[in-house]
Amino acid sequence: MDDVILMSHGGGGRRTQQLLRDIILPPLANPILDQMDDAASLTLAGADLAVTTDSYVIRPLFFPGGDIGRLCVCGTINDLAMQGAVPRYLTLGLILEEGLPLADLRRIVASIAATAAEAGVQVVAGDTKVVERGAGNGLFINTAGFGVRRPGVNTHIANARPGDAVLITGSLGDHGIAVLSQREGIAFATQLASDVAPLNGLVGALLETVPGIHVLRDPTRGGVAAALNDMARAAGVGIRLDETALPIRPEVYGACNLLGLDPLAVANEGKALVVCAAADEATALAALRAHPLGRDVRRIGTVLSAPRGQVLLHTRLGGERLVDLPLGDDLPRIC
Amino acid sequence: MDDVILMSHGGGGRRTQQLLRDIILPPLANPILDQMDDAASLTLAGADLAVTTDSYVIRPLFFPGGDIGRLCVCGTINDLAMQGAVPRYLTLGLILEEGLPLADLRRIVASIAATAAEAGVQVVAGDTKVVERGAGNGLFINTAGFGVRRPGVNTHIANARPGDAVLITGSLGDHGIAVLSQREGIAFATQLASDVAPLNGLVGALLETVPGIHVLRDPTRGGVAAALNDMARAAGVGIRLDETALPIRPEVYGACNLLGLDPLAVANEGKALVVCAAADEATALAALRAHPLGRDVRRIGTVLSAPRGQVLLHTRLGGERLVDLPLGDDLPRIC
Repeated sequence: MDDVILMSHGGGGRRTQQLLRDIILPPLANPILDQMDDAASLTLAGADLAVTTDSYVIRPLFFPGGDIGRLCVCGTINDLAMQGAVPRYLTLGLILEEGLPLADLRRIVASIAATAAEAGVQVVAGDTKVVERGAGNGLFINTAGFGVRRPGVNTHIANARPGDAVLITGSLGDHGIAVLSQREGIAFATQLASDVAPLNGLVGALLETVPGIHVLRDPTRGGVAAALNDMARAAGVGIRLDETALPIRPEVYGACNLLGLDPLAVANEGKALVVCAAADEATALAALRAHPLGRDVRRIGTVLSAPRGQVLLHTRLGGERLVDLPLGDDLPRIC
Repeated sequence: MDDVILMSHGGGGRRTQQLLRDIILPPLANPILDQMDDAASLTLAGADLAVTTDSYVIRPLFFPGGDIGRLCVCGTINDLAMQGAVPRYLTLGLILEEGLPLADLRRIVASIAATAAEAGVQVVAGDTKVVERGAGNGLFINTAGFGVRRPGVNTHIANARPGDAVLITGSLGDHGIAVLSQREGIAFATQLASDVAPLNGLVGALLETVPGIHVLRDPTRGGVAAALNDMARAAGVGIRLDETALPIRPEVYGACNLLGLDPLAVANEGKALVVCAAADEATALAALRAHPLGRDVRRIGTVLSAPRGQVLLHTRLGGERLVDLPLGDDLPRIC
């Protein structure tokens, strides 16, 4: 019974990493795939490209602040943007469930088109399949994205260096909690909306000002906890977060308390983690703050030389606790 | 009740085309997508690329002659090859259903790796999602593929010209009937295997000898009937097939008779339709015959100036019948 796929294998945490390391990656290994970054960097016919793919299985299909259509464009574009690339083209694979209302499909395709236009990318190839009622989700979407890498930019997670500043471009956990509240019918005092947004404009403005940014990463599945744990391991550094600096909305904080979730492990879909040299911090903050999606940027932590491979939270009360890589079974089907 | 997705929307025939034309394509329209070829042709950072995507929802996951892993590599590579491109890289999106045996996943990933090696391509980016038991198929796969276009080669379906020869590289309908027989438990005298195979080597050998091939197309969903109807419409030509020339195995013919299927509308996953000038026919046949996957190539028809947009079958008995675009509800989940 242990030798089957579990929901936690899809959570973006420890179980996902085990599945990749033990089963999926070894037969497929090659130098490009082994980079294990948000997007693959490769050169094809002389062009320096970034390539990525994501499947979207979120439920419900429509949620406060967005829908699966907006999400499937933003998620893939953001992976390219975090690679320091300029996203240009998307492919679109639709798996439709028999019985899906055509009106829902129309709304979702319109949302894909509007979000692609907002981000300045085009859908250039697609595929549509249908599965029997009961064999699908209403709709699963896969997008692959590709773009052109900026010369001289390298934002791989292994580039974090002791002394670097860790910035976040806005509040944490909005996407995961907005989707969960819609799904589970949990009411909050305020209507919380997902932060789903294309980050290529924000990142482009940042890299024009500070091309030497060390690391960019969008904390999606597994949240900031998973992204920073990946970074600490890949770079062989420690990372210390300051709890009083973490931008968490009261309704996210409240929902997490209620549900026993750690806001650091909840998915974001319109935020970037930015790691830069301390000397670049002020310039980076100013460049990000000047963009509508970066108005609330702030520093939340520091890269340290130790403890290597670990993320620590300096708490409000003055103590320290380990921020572990989430196991992955807290928040299924959030993207 | 009419305003929902039906299984026939996924069949690759008339209903699929309606869905694309009425709902999916209009909001997304752009010059590259509007080519509507097997793969998109585009130029990015100076590189002439071909890009395509397909989702695979076949059941069962393992079938005589292949599995979903071999299929998801071949289907996408073949779309690039038909574009006259050299396939180089794939992305891989897995949607796993809770409860899928890890042993099955291992076999499928091994099959992906072996087929990619056979075809000389690499998986460079991937994504893994998990959905609850009952919300999936065991496994859905999406692949997107990237390759480099050969200079001077243009194999778009609109290039068919009156007088051209229509060739097929081997027997028709093997994939669809092999999968259907496995699924429905239909026994045949002989064990029929799917023809699923990567065609980039075969097509590469052909294009080196005859770079001026007019059209290449792999007759997958909707079979030869759908591919030739698309071609007749796009090129504004008629196409006449000779029934006595059609290479159909007795077990495929028998199964189609039993099930009320037209072998011309059944999917192939390792065959190419080749349209070339009559003057190039002998050279093309020789080049294809020299390759293991083209040994049984033969001419099956002729491109005519009329009736425009239609495909005719010159029957064994000397009559003619129209080969219509299939509606799309005969063979669900065959790829």
